Amino acid sequence: MTRWVYAFGGEKTAGGAEMNALLGGKGANLAEMARLGLPVPPGFTITTEVCTRFYEDGECYPAGLEEQVEAALAVVEAAVDRQFGGEDEPLLLSVRSGARVSMPGMMDTVLNLGLNDRTVEALAVSAGDRRFAFDSYRRFVQMFADVALGVDRGLFEEEIEHLKDRKGVDADADLNAEDWRALTTRFKEIVLTETGVPFPDEPHAQLWEAIGAVMRSWQTPRARTYRRLHDIPEVWGTAVNVQAMVFGNMGEDCATGVAFTRNPSTGENALYGEYLVNAQGEDVVAGIRTPQSLTVADAQARGSQQSPMERAMPEAFARLMEMRAQLECHFRDMQDIEFTVETGRLWMLQTRSGKRTAQAALQIAVDMVEEGTIGPEEAVMRIEPQALEQLLHPTLDPDAERDVIARGLPASPGAASGRIVFTADAAEQAAAADEAVILVRSETSPEDIHGMHAARGILTSRGGMTSHAAVVARGMGRACVSGAGAVRIDAESGVMLAGGRCFTTADRITIDGGTGEVMAGEIATIQPEVTGGFAQLMEWADEARLLRVRANAETPRDAEAARAFGAEGIGLCRTEHMFFDADRILAMREMILADDETGRRTALAKLLPMQRRDFVALFRIMDGLPVTIRLLDPPLHEFLPRTEEETAEVAAAAGVDAVKLRRRALRLEEENPMLGHRGCRLGVTWPEIYEMQARAIFEAAAETGAEPEVMVPLVATGSELEYIKAIIDRTAASVVEETSTALAYSIGTMIELPRAALRAAEIAPAAAFFSFGTNDLTQTAFGISRDDASSFLGAYRDGGILANDPFETLDIDGVGELVRLAAERGRAARPDLKLGICGEHGGDPASVVFCHDIGLDYVSCSPYRVPIARLAAAQAAISLGKGKKQDQAPPAP
Amino acid sequence: MTRWVYAFGGEKTAGGAEMNALLGGKGANLAEMARLGLPVPPGFTITTEVCTRFYEDGECYPAGLEEQVEAALAVVEAAVDRQFGGEDEPLLLSVRSGARVSMPGMMDTVLNLGLNDRTVEALAVSAGDRRFAFDSYRRFVQMFADVALGVDRGLFEEEIEHLKDRKGVDADADLNAEDWRALTTRFKEIVLTETGVPFPDEPHAQLWEAIGAVMRSWQTPRARTYRRLHDIPEVWGTAVNVQAMVFGNMGEDCATGVAFTRNPSTGENALYGEYLVNAQGEDVVAGIRTPQSLTVADAQARGSQQSPMERAMPEAFARLMEMRAQLECHFRDMQDIEFTVETGRLWMLQTRSGKRTAQAALQIAVDMVEEGTIGPEEAVMRIEPQALEQLLHPTLDPDAERDVIARGLPASPGAASGRIVFTADAAEQAAAADEAVILVRSETSPEDIHGMHAARGILTSRGGMTSHAAVVARGMGRACVSGAGAVRIDAESGVMLAGGRCFTTADRITIDGGTGEVMAGEIATIQPEVTGGFAQLMEWADEARLLRVRANAETPRDAEAARAFGAEGIGLCRTEHMFFDADRILAMREMILADDETGRRTALAKLLPMQRRDFVALFRIMDGLPVTIRLLDPPLHEFLPRTEEETAEVAAAAGVDAVKLRRRALRLEEENPMLGHRGCRLGVTWPEIYEMQARAIFEAAAETGAEPEVMVPLVATGSELEYIKAIIDRTAASVVEETSTALAYSIGTMIELPRAALRAAEIAPAAAFFSFGTNDLTQTAFGISRDDASSFLGAYRDGGILANDPFETLDIDGVGELVRLAAERGRAARPDLKLGICGEHGGDPASVVFCHDIGLDYVSCSPYRVPIARLAAAQAAISLGKGKKQDQAPPAP
Repeated sequence: MTRWVYAFGGEKTAGGAEMNALLGGKGANLAEMARLGLPVPPGFTITTEVCTRFYEDGECYPAGLEEQVEAALAVVEAAVDRQFGGEDEPLLLSVRSGARVSMPGMMDTVLNLGLNDRTVEALAVSAGDRRFAFDSYRRFVQMFADVALGVDRGLFEEEIEHLKDRKGVDADADLNAEDWRALTTRFKEIVLTETGVPFPDEPHAQLWEAIGAVMRSWQTPRARTYRRLHDIPEVWGTAVNVQAMVFGNMGEDCATGVAFTRNPSTGENALYGEYLVNAQGEDVVAGIRTPQSLTVADAQARGSQQSPMERAMPEAFARLMEMRAQLECHFRDMQDIEFTVETGRLWMLQTRSGKRTAQAALQIAVDMVEEGTIGPEEAVMRIEPQALEQLLHPTLDPDAERDVIARGLPASPGAASGRIVFTADAAEQAAAADEAVILVRSETSPEDIHGMHAARGILTSRGGMTSHAAVVARGMGRACVSGAGAVRIDAESGVMLAGGRCFTTADRITIDGGTGEVMAGEIATIQPEVTGGFAQLMEWADEARLLRVRANAETPRDAEAARAFGAEGIGLCRTEHMFFDADRILAMREMILADDETGRRTALAKLLPMQRRDFVALFRIMDGLPVTIRLLDPPLHEFLPRTEEETAEVAAAAGVDAVKLRRRALRLEEENPMLGHRGCRLGVTWPEIYEMQARAIFEAAAETGAEPEVMVPLVATGSELEYIKAIIDRTAASVVEETSTALAYSIGTMIELPRAALRAAEIAPAAAFFSFGTNDLTQTAFGISRDDASSFLGAYRDGGILANDPFETLDIDGVGELVRLAAERGRAARPDLKLGICGEHGGDPASVVFCHDIGLDYVSCSPYRVPIARLAAAQAAISLGKGKKQDQAPPAP
Repeated sequence: MTRWVYAFGGEKTAGGAEMNALLGGKGANLAEMARLGLPVPPGFTITTEVCTRFYEDGECYPAGLEEQVEAALAVVEAAVDRQFGGEDEPLLLSVRSGARVSMPGMMDTVLNLGLNDRTVEALAVSAGDRRFAFDSYRRFVQMFADVALGVDRGLFEEEIEHLKDRKGVDADADLNAEDWRALTTRFKEIVLTETGVPFPDEPHAQLWEAIGAVMRSWQTPRARTYRRLHDIPEVWGTAVNVQAMVFGNMGEDCATGVAFTRNPSTGENALYGEYLVNAQGEDVVAGIRTPQSLTVADAQARGSQQSPMERAMPEAFARLMEMRAQLECHFRDMQDIEFTVETGRLWMLQTRSGKRTAQAALQIAVDMVEEGTIGPEEAVMRIEPQALEQLLHPTLDPDAERDVIARGLPASPGAASGRIVFTADAAEQAAAADEAVILVRSETSPEDIHGMHAARGILTSRGGMTSHAAVVARGMGRACVSGAGAVRIDAESGVMLAGGRCFTTADRITIDGGTGEVMAGEIATIQPEVTGGFAQLMEWADEARLLRVRANAETPRDAEAARAFGAEGIGLCRTEHMFFDADRILAMREMILADDETGRRTALAKLLPMQRRDFVALFRIMDGLPVTIRLLDPPLHEFLPRTEEETAEVAAAAGVDAVKLRRRALRLEEENPMLGHRGCRLGVTWPEIYEMQARAIFEAAAETGAEPEVMVPLVATGSELEYIKAIIDRTAASVVEETSTALAYSIGTMIELPRAALRAAEIAPAAAFFSFGTNDLTQTAFGISRDDASSFLGAYRDGGILANDPFETLDIDGVGELVRLAAERGRAARPDLKLGICGEHGGDPASVVFCHDIGLDYVSCSPYRVPIARLAAAQAAISLGKGKKQDQAPPAP
């Protein structure tokens, strides 16, 4: 006979923490505490297998369950020496759901089960408190009707309010035993009206009904949605925990409370929590009375006049402190505890790993290593990489109220508040006056860069995660929300419409670049506090990981930030960003709009010394670390003037007719610039551009002794790369000859087109390295333009068609197969091929795991995500093992 | 000892036609003719292996070559009883190159080799004609200097002209023996001046110099370029043919000529060619004298007064006719022959398969089957599928002069001339007056359709092979050149600039939609002549092929054309084309710009009856043949009004504010529409559109009994197709219920994104068929927008980076791997999956072969390409074998 029921807390305990899958989280930990000898009210757990069978068999219980439940119940009765449904000292039960992982979508708890018109009288006698008994009774009917029978909770609250009105009193405390009795009767009438079935009076019927309700709560729409969103398999099922009641509300020597074994907000190693005297658990949640501090220290810190538990119940408190130490030592993690004191005696009702802020997680993990509780690798595994963003960027005060007026893409993390400005110049003026502003634009362009730098944050109504605004903001570490389509901007009139309201430059707004929310008004932000623990944890992470982590950076500022965050090189230096400065864009435009090669070369000659200076600066900062420089990638029309005025300026500089120039500019416009004349296609048609860039790189390398990695973008065929490689090699040879300096450099390519991934074997012979540009690879594999996707991706998420935004988390099934194939085929053709990734996914923890798994050498991401990538890489190495690379030399950076 | 030299025509002939690779085409066929007993002047062939070794060994001849050449030469001397360099009856030789395939880039011929100041005197005596001897001598020096020594041919011509001036004569015939002698001396002086080396007098030195020249001509830049363009491997090398001279210029009983065994222009079964009395081969080419007819019939047809060979040399002619029959019978194909008559005796100098027009190829192939010379499958293999375009569209008279002013993309085949018009209305007015016009637009839009129909051809300056103009023109069978970027159009001023010239509506132009050329003025076109032979050949092709051939068609006119061309169904009905008519676009725009779902449904309700009528008409025409209907695919902004006037019209129809409408339209604009909100993404966001279309399809099916195939575009994931399939199935169920008619239908999907191809196993369960949209698959795999590619693809071709335009011929290595993977994975998941292709590649012969090879069920292409696809499919089945499918049931259509 299969065992369906596991007892705990009585004479013997059958389960334990290791049986989490079978008993659910709550049940397994109750058993574990009982095993440890902690005071757990006796009870039993019906396994998750029963739930699974229940659904397989058309909502029938498996054979033998009833007998096993009755037997387990008898054990509980014996342990507490009370009888379920007994008219003497009745045993009351709590019934709780409990899946393998905590699931808010499911039934929570029914307390005081077993009460009816007869047992309530017995309870009144045995407790010596009639009001307590009838209060317990009405609570039971109310909870049972709500969570097990689905009757609207509001109907009961209304009745209570009616009665208080009739009696002219304000508080529940003003109602007496008779009031509660009458209300209970009324509640049962409501249940009959609402469900058409009388409220079950027989305790066993109540129990089975509650068990069934827990089973069925596994399939509520809310639970299903939660499972879908969190990838929880349907077959897991939920367990049911049935446990003898203990009462925190039987008098002044009773209490109920919750505690964290350490401070979940700061990580401080001190008991943290609250308790309420003479109350049941739900009272803490309901917030009718203000809970009191547990410790004297906390009470003092809060300035509370009320007696902390440490004072009011010194014995129970001492016991609690003992158990805190015991639980932490046993579970080797900070615990979140529920407890009840019944007539002076402490009972443990739950323990589980406590949720915590990023800062606390970090502090606790580091402290526990120092205390010897866990090892460094375990500490590394304890921190959610994504959570580091909280440590590195200002975050919104979680308690502050948010008046959300629009949502966009979380383009660059951090929260920022400020007055609205619509132009870069206005932002700069405000910054000069030390005023915080948010730059609001339909989209940004190179001319806005000074304003983006001056602003606290950037909000755009158009463009995606890889738009100009997003990329530049991430590089600068500025908060940015992009593509907030519902925001209408009329910059000329100085008006922004959002959420049906009108905002002007007189108004302040707040943006959260981590969530994409846009809020009216100023909201308090919390500045990040990077402690020594952070550096310690990162050191442990670096020891564990195999993947190297580089940064995407082009300016000296970016490069310095990258080094500060621990980047081991630059994986992507986008040279086009170097042409956006005001003094350069003119020469760039002159080049683009030149009549012929001679004209282009004249303009390029102006850019050469600037590019060379850029690279010299970059090489000096990176000081021997590898630097991968991508040659010009975007279509040239991105650099073109948009206004007549700017066109005239370029025309004057180039000495040509403005109208003619305008026409030439129009000719460069494209239907689909993403798939247009860009990347190495520019190098094929206008080799002089790549020649200038290669020359600037090599002259800077000759000056500094750097060993640059030159990267060719948007390659689709092997012959394309060979063609461009010849141009670069030729230029290098010229520089070697002119400077009489030997150069060490390598040439590689982005793999960002499906064809390039498939034909990796044909491309690898000409490439010393592949860098996967997973942004463009995702765009082309899915056929989705990131900039335009906002108009339909919402419907895809709502319809459950796409679980994740493939631009945030790498689509391992599709895009990932291309990456994997390219890595395999490339390495087969060229065993020393270096492999990295430099798309936005390089900073996404799940994607980093994938990169480790397929054996890439490095990931590269924006500077502020470098710590996240370092941590994710360490976790991947620890959990997936380092086997893949053990027989290799240490990876090249 | 390796055999380097193969003799022919003397006592024994060692080679034959089967040794083409070793002896080259010319040498192998000379040997074959000698073997057949035809009169071939004796000679020998130095093998292509010698050439290969020559280059491998640093331009040295292999050991043994010299001995073998000398031995072979001795055999020739014996055969003709003359001595090479002999001062009695000197043997003269011709030396010719001859690769495996004919290569215009190489050295052609040296005649009369062996002459010097001594042997020429002997020749004068033996021929009894001193002038002939010295004329031959100067010809030899001239040719040798030109082709073997690289001296500019013009220098010699100048000398001849000088002499004629001095003598006051006009014709070469007026120069005597002494004149030629003097000129020869002068020529040798020129050679010495130009090359610094005296002209070689010793006959053996001449021979080895000529052999070396042939070898080296394999590596001239011209030959290398030709090889690259025609994929001829470098290792093939060229053979050298050395042959005893025979003279067609020794008197009035001598002649030289060329002949085709059948008419290469019409295919008529009659000898076709020309000859010249008393001339050497080069005189025919030089065109100084007009060659005469061979046959009486031809002379009469030409109205020639001169005596045809049939009259003038009846015996030699009779011998020629015998050999014609013998050669055709032996080679089983029409031959292109060179011959010489020396003092009444006929000698054969060359035979090879003759080049011919498409019409002739067809006629000859069909006739030869009827004559019993070849079988039907061989006839099918004889026709280049692409050549059928000549048979189906007007072509430009190849002899007419072309004044090319611009080049664009060959968007829709056929040639057309007409007056320039810049608007659709002007085109319609001109057509009403029966005037031929070419519609010239920067790009076309739905409003231009009536004008496109009225015009003879369409020229656009923007847009690619899949632009509106290109797609619509192909459907209509109109000639179209698209994306002629160098053409500047100012429609308002009524001016077009091209090739630096200005054209107005007073000017006529000609376009060639098969080449993309745009020419000034009217150029004679040749109308296609479809003979009974065409139908016969197609019948044989249909018997041979396994691939089904369908057409891409949406209008009744297209569908009728498709059936006329033998389509076995519609593989792609693009429903969006049905919304372009003037009465529909208004409702379409109203739908797109509606405020909400209700507004959209109101507009869709107007479209429903029109769509239903379309499908009823289509189903009736296709009469039980399969029809695949693709649901709406393009981004909606493609349908939007472009002018204020049109916007106002739509606003009035929809009863909304025009300004508001304009704003909504702007919001639909996209950065990269190709990767934007289109395809099934429209069905996810606005399901009511697909519901309307599905309803129209199913109501039409219920009315006609058709069994439609509903196709979902742009699917990237399995869940996406399942989501849309549910909408379609639901609609079908409604129609079944409402009409009480059972419906047979299937639902499938386009595979046009790399991710869809890779995830075929996940998509196949919801798809009854896959149709590969290789246009979009090429765009996404390569990351190239077809519309924008013209700005760089030219540089790719010029740089040798891309051999073919991947939009014309499927990129088998990259895109092809995706198609292959999808076919394999799809079929593995669903064995009854039907597979087809409906991109432009469906009509490209090379791509059709690939489709056959990987076992697709059908290809679908524009109606006018259906015959090409049928023929290509037959050739694939014949040459690749039908093995793959023999164990399958006949493919479903």
